[in-house]
Amino acid sequence: MKEIKKVVLAYSGGLDTSVIAKWLEDTYECEVVTFTADLGQGEEVEPARAKAEALGIKEIYIEDLREEFVRDFVFPMFRANTVYEGEYLLGTSIARPLISKRLIEIANETGADAISHGATGKGNDQVRFELGAYALKPGVQVIAPWREWDLNSREKLLAYCDEHDIQVEKKKGKSPYSMDANLLHISYEGGVLEDPWAEAEEEMWRWSVSPENAPDEALYLELTYKNGDIVAIDGQEMTPATVLTYLNKVGGENGVGRLDIVENRYVGMKSRGCYETPGGTIMLKAHRAIESITLDREVAHLKDELMPKYAKLIYNGYWWSPEREMLQKMIDESQECVNGVVRLKLYKGNVSVVGRQSDDSLFDENIATFEDDEGAYDQADAEGFIKLNALRLRIAANKGRNLG
Amino acid sequence: MKEIKKVVLAYSGGLDTSVIAKWLEDTYECEVVTFTADLGQGEEVEPARAKAEALGIKEIYIEDLREEFVRDFVFPMFRANTVYEGEYLLGTSIARPLISKRLIEIANETGADAISHGATGKGNDQVRFELGAYALKPGVQVIAPWREWDLNSREKLLAYCDEHDIQVEKKKGKSPYSMDANLLHISYEGGVLEDPWAEAEEEMWRWSVSPENAPDEALYLELTYKNGDIVAIDGQEMTPATVLTYLNKVGGENGVGRLDIVENRYVGMKSRGCYETPGGTIMLKAHRAIESITLDREVAHLKDELMPKYAKLIYNGYWWSPEREMLQKMIDESQECVNGVVRLKLYKGNVSVVGRQSDDSLFDENIATFEDDEGAYDQADAEGFIKLNALRLRIAANKGRNLG
Amino acid sequence: MKEIKKVVLAYSGGLDTSVIAKWLEDTYECEVVTFTADLGQGEEVEPARAKAEALGIKEIYIEDLREEFVRDFVFPMFRANTVYEGEYLLGTSIARPLISKRLIEIANETGADAISHGATGKGNDQVRFELGAYALKPGVQVIAPWREWDLNSREKLLAYCDEHDIQVEKKKGKSPYSMDANLLHISYEGGVLEDPWAEAEEEMWRWSVSPENAPDEALYLELTYKNGDIVAIDGQEMTPATVLTYLNKVGGENGVGRLDIVENRYVGMKSRGCYETPGGTIMLKAHRAIESITLDREVAHLKDELMPKYAKLIYNGYWWSPEREMLQKMIDESQECVNGVVRLKLYKGNVSVVGRQSDDSLFDENIATFEDDEGAYDQADAEGFIKLNALRLRIAANKGRNLG
Amino acid sequence: MKEIKKVVLAYSGGLDTSVIAKWLEDTYECEVVTFTADLGQGEEVEPARAKAEALGIKEIYIEDLREEFVRDFVFPMFRANTVYEGEYLLGTSIARPLISKRLIEIANETGADAISHGATGKGNDQVRFELGAYALKPGVQVIAPWREWDLNSREKLLAYCDEHDIQVEKKKGKSPYSMDANLLHISYEGGVLEDPWAEAEEEMWRWSVSPENAPDEALYLELTYKNGDIVAIDGQEMTPATVLTYLNKVGGENGVGRLDIVENRYVGMKSRGCYETPGGTIMLKAHRAIESITLDREVAHLKDELMPKYAKLIYNGYWWSPEREMLQKMIDESQECVNGVVRLKLYKGNVSVVGRQSDDSLFDENIATFEDDEGAYDQADAEGFIKLNALRLRIAANKGRNLG
Repeated sequence: MKEIKKVVLAYSGGLDTSVIAKWLEDTYECEVVTFTADLGQGEEVEPARAKAEALGIKEIYIEDLREEFVRDFVFPMFRANTVYEGEYLLGTSIARPLISKRLIEIANETGADAISHGATGKGNDQVRFELGAYALKPGVQVIAPWREWDLNSREKLLAYCDEHDIQVEKKKGKSPYSMDANLLHISYEGGVLEDPWAEAEEEMWRWSVSPENAPDEALYLELTYKNGDIVAIDGQEMTPATVLTYLNKVGGENGVGRLDIVENRYVGMKSRGCYETPGGTIMLKAHRAIESITLDREVAHLKDELMPKYAKLIYNGYWWSPEREMLQKMIDESQECVNGVVRLKLYKGNVSVVGRQSDDSLFDENIATFEDDEGAYDQADAEGFIKLNALRLRIAANKGRNLG
Repeated sequence: MKEIKKVVLAYSGGLDTSVIAKWLEDTYECEVVTFTADLGQGEEVEPARAKAEALGIKEIYIEDLREEFVRDFVFPMFRANTVYEGEYLLGTSIARPLISKRLIEIANETGADAISHGATGKGNDQVRFELGAYALKPGVQVIAPWREWDLNSREKLLAYCDEHDIQVEKKKGKSPYSMDANLLHISYEGGVLEDPWAEAEEEMWRWSVSPENAPDEALYLELTYKNGDIVAIDGQEMTPATVLTYLNKVGGENGVGRLDIVENRYVGMKSRGCYETPGGTIMLKAHRAIESITLDREVAHLKDELMPKYAKLIYNGYWWSPEREMLQKMIDESQECVNGVVRLKLYKGNVSVVGRQSDDSLFDENIATFEDDEGAYDQADAEGFIKLNALRLRIAANKGRNLG
Repeated sequence: MKEIKKVVLAYSGGLDTSVIAKWLEDTYECEVVTFTADLGQGEEVEPARAKAEALGIKEIYIEDLREEFVRDFVFPMFRANTVYEGEYLLGTSIARPLISKRLIEIANETGADAISHGATGKGNDQVRFELGAYALKPGVQVIAPWREWDLNSREKLLAYCDEHDIQVEKKKGKSPYSMDANLLHISYEGGVLEDPWAEAEEEMWRWSVSPENAPDEALYLELTYKNGDIVAIDGQEMTPATVLTYLNKVGGENGVGRLDIVENRYVGMKSRGCYETPGGTIMLKAHRAIESITLDREVAHLKDELMPKYAKLIYNGYWWSPEREMLQKMIDESQECVNGVVRLKLYKGNVSVVGRQSDDSLFDENIATFEDDEGAYDQADAEGFIKLNALRLRIAANKGRNLG
Repeated sequence: MKEIKKVVLAYSGGLDTSVIAKWLEDTYECEVVTFTADLGQGEEVEPARAKAEALGIKEIYIEDLREEFVRDFVFPMFRANTVYEGEYLLGTSIARPLISKRLIEIANETGADAISHGATGKGNDQVRFELGAYALKPGVQVIAPWREWDLNSREKLLAYCDEHDIQVEKKKGKSPYSMDANLLHISYEGGVLEDPWAEAEEEMWRWSVSPENAPDEALYLELTYKNGDIVAIDGQEMTPATVLTYLNKVGGENGVGRLDIVENRYVGMKSRGCYETPGGTIMLKAHRAIESITLDREVAHLKDELMPKYAKLIYNGYWWSPEREMLQKMIDESQECVNGVVRLKLYKGNVSVVGRQSDDSLFDENIATFEDDEGAYDQADAEGFIKLNALRLRIAANKGRNLG
């Protein structure tokens, strides 16, 4: 068994991580530092302090990281129009690298030689936490209790609590789903969702009304972009976290952002998940719209071709890697001119772009027009363009190559 | 000037191509063969016969190509989850190669040495028509009147008709938009759309009701896939064209499939277009869902990484090219196991996947479960997996490389 | 400990795998089947029979797999011009999937429930053997003694032999290098090579003379290709293994094919290796040459863009995977017209292409000529081609975007 | 005909561009400014002044651009290990953007509204010159005489000289090849090379001895890299142009850098070219070697995957484009740690890497060693790594999917 002196634990204050705190002390005879972050999950983090104190923790970190989360992680990711497997907006994936970073920084501040987390051995989150931790502090020890202990059921955890005098709220009607939330999304896995044919129940969803229950009146929004990020809504300047909080609110109220998919985990299995990402759904649509008038065609296509790889890096836990940073440099470089305003309509689950404008627009009405363009574009040029593009095809056909 | 003996014209029966037919005869002193196809544009094609006869055309081809269009062009494209620039379902682009193919086949049958079309010198369609024609018959002559003549306004065309006794319907209330339709979509360009900030008017849309006007009751659909193509809806077997016709109907009735974008044309300019693609929007969503349980992860990711290139080939007019065929071979190969049923819900513009099942499913409930998996997956394996994936990052950090 | 009844061991007859055979019996109390293959490593395989018998092995497989190796593994890989990290011709990597396949087939024939190999826990080969085995027989057990036992030095292995009465040749002057050989290459790692600044000693190399010691006279060769594979040399038809044997001979005699690199292993570390690949070096150069006149430009470019991914799959051990097979399908499809003859010159380490010809050539002298082409190509077309390709750049510049 | 007031001509002082200078004045009745650059082509540029004066030119620019050429164009390109179609080092392609840039800058300085060049309508160079010019000055007029005039043979050009009193050296024994040279390479096209089966004659080559005629003694070189560029040779600091000049000298003396290929031109045809690139051949090999110990694996692989696209951009003339600049940003970012020394051996055409070292090396001898690593690497980790990487393959096999 590893020799550990002090371990920083990603601590939620819930049953699992409370048991872990105690179990770490008992098993490794080490000091435990708890770290609890507000990433916009929608629950108070301050109560975690009393719980940690009750467990006898001496060093307790409780932090509001919402602005950093959106500014340094969510926004950079949306600059790439990032979607995993065509659908998933990476709400869980993008929060992990920030937690890894703070765990390691706190380890450095407190002289801890290990970190620990409550992710299971089947999921992606263990990978994301640990790859980040190793990348930022290569000699750190990682303790993943779910891979080590035999407390593999809720009953055993509760028994452990009884045995060790750990106070936990015995919530009635505990959710049948495994959930994760932050300012970008809330996710649901497990329970009836383990059958991919079963439709999710309406009661499961927490952040959005169903399209059926959304208002009968559409909501129009104007989002102002600067260097690819939203800086104002309806003319009102906002910080990154405020932008996302606001978009979650209006998105959720209008039934926007529900998703039900089967995804491929990095650890090798398929998994069914449901997600609510109201603000993110709006941001993806709007960002594509502002790019559509401000980005050069080939830059846009290069971004599109590289996006799946970039999304995969984030999904798999490689935010803290030189290859992600290299791609990010290129993506950020492309956003210099991504400025302007997008006008959107939200209505019962739909997000529609209805207008876009920019001082940096590359849309040229004089050239694009169906009306007389007064010589801005010489239609005769098209013949040579087509002829030379066709040349290799013609040569091949002349040599007897057949298509179709 | 080229010497032309006989030219096959893609003929709609409308004002423009009627003028072209006459203009070709006059200008090139050649015979004109007309070719009119039903691709599902929603207008009768048979009336084109009388119009062509009135113009003195001797060889008149009128054909229903709807099944071939969907079976050999639309379906193969959807196997790749093809989307251009993140949004456009390529409704216009995918119809052009079929028209090129028939133009050339008819040229071969009738001994024509040229083909002609009514596409302008600013758009993508001229490129698509002509690349296809050159690839299939490298010595063919192409006449693109819009790039040659000076009849560059509706007034001049009408004057030409008067002068040359061409009968055309003088439609009242002619649409202010440039439109194109086939079984996959209807498109709108020009008019007020030339201002990308202007919202499209509700009256413009023809194939779908607005989400606001869609029924208050959701519609559930079950699509059956075989080798990546839909072969039955709600248990009812259907031909390809019938599938798409049906999905257009129910999609349009439920407000599905409207799109408003600015896209990058191959000829170098940005252009604003609005599209209605009810059936295609449903198919894209459903195809991703059936693939999500039947495709291997890395196969899916490879498809996602190559898709933008494949989409660009189709958009730019390279359907008839060896590189498109090479990609198609790979895509088709991947679809062997893409079999099963997807359950969808349509509601006021939303298409939601609510279930998917397949005898070829790779979703393994025993492994994915949050419950006890009885040893199907050894959580301890994750440690080694993470450690070795982290190794290069740890070595770099140990050598002093910094991230972030 | 796993319960094993019978294990198939990849057996070379050398010290390591002889110890393994015994150790498997002792440790797992299981039957051992040995499998020894001639892949062109240049050593007799038949003597392995007596050695296996001396160890008490009942089921002994000894096979000449050279033709299958070159036909089904080496040749398909060369169709893609496959090179890992710009230099490495994958000589070791490409042999592993064939061994995995035979191990599993023999396991199926003999009713074995496990396989075993002598690869260490630090290298790529363990990954390649095992990924292949799991992909072909998902329930198979794998025993990798080097990851389990404590016999981690030559001394301990020899002691084990003494203790267990295993007869091994105590070679004098054992090579200080870890070597691997098959018909495609011989590799050297370890020893002084562990210092990447140290030059390899001339005595290390076994398959080739140094360029300094090669003949003063150049050798000319004509290779005939059919569907991307060499089918004849200097007009003489040959089987795949004969082709490679011959090219190794003449390549090695002319100092061709030495390589000294630092490569990135899949398990996360950098490693220095030296390789001799005389025939492969010739084949890569020649295959590019025959493709240069027979492949369409865009097909060639698509192959080039996908090659690094394909190479990585093979290097990492994913030959037996659906994504490799999907890429292979595309690559093979592209080779239909890769027919013709390449003329090469070998001289003191250099392989130079001096001529190429094909009935399927797309090289069109009439168009390419600097002389009068009699109208085959209209130079005026270039203006439109350039103008439209420049359009997006001009619009951007007009809008004030700056380059450089 | 375009109205031109003043045109800047890329002027070599040779027959073709002397005729062009006169022809431009006569045809467009415009002023002509000549621009002659020393890019290392190996001919004096100063004599061009007298020739231009003899033609009556008033504004004459003669410049030594060698340092700028290597520093800002050649070196950045080599940071990407750039090779077009697996072989071509882009010697001609990379010089064009610098000429375009200076033509436009001179046009701006002299108030010229047009530029002109002597490239033909069949080649890539017209595209490269003009795309660059349009990108840098979107309203510029371009005159490409070879696409306009009928002086399409040497005889007609000489007759034009006689007629217009243009003094040209009537070189005896004019080369039968079309050649282009700069500090990176010299190229040969045309003549007997138009038959791709014909071997190039030994007399054609100008910059290098044949391997046969190279010294019998090998030459060792040590190249010092900083941020991916060579800054010193054998410990001697050098400027970029001096580095390349030196490497050309020693490379050429040792028979390094000849290439004979058929390449695919952007304008659609295949073309046979021979190239001598002594210094570039050395630089490519050495740069890969220094990267092999200093670059992260995934960064290196990402560079390899993007390289073909980057090479194609340069080959096709898109140096001055936002997508090339975006890729360059990423490439340059990756070079921060590409520092150290590479030791090379040149011998009769061979360039062999024999050592590499760096303070930024990621090669870790403790982990890579075949000897006891004292726990730096835990071999047991490999099992989990393999097991999880195999999981998707095992699930598929269990579900009955077959490979092979």
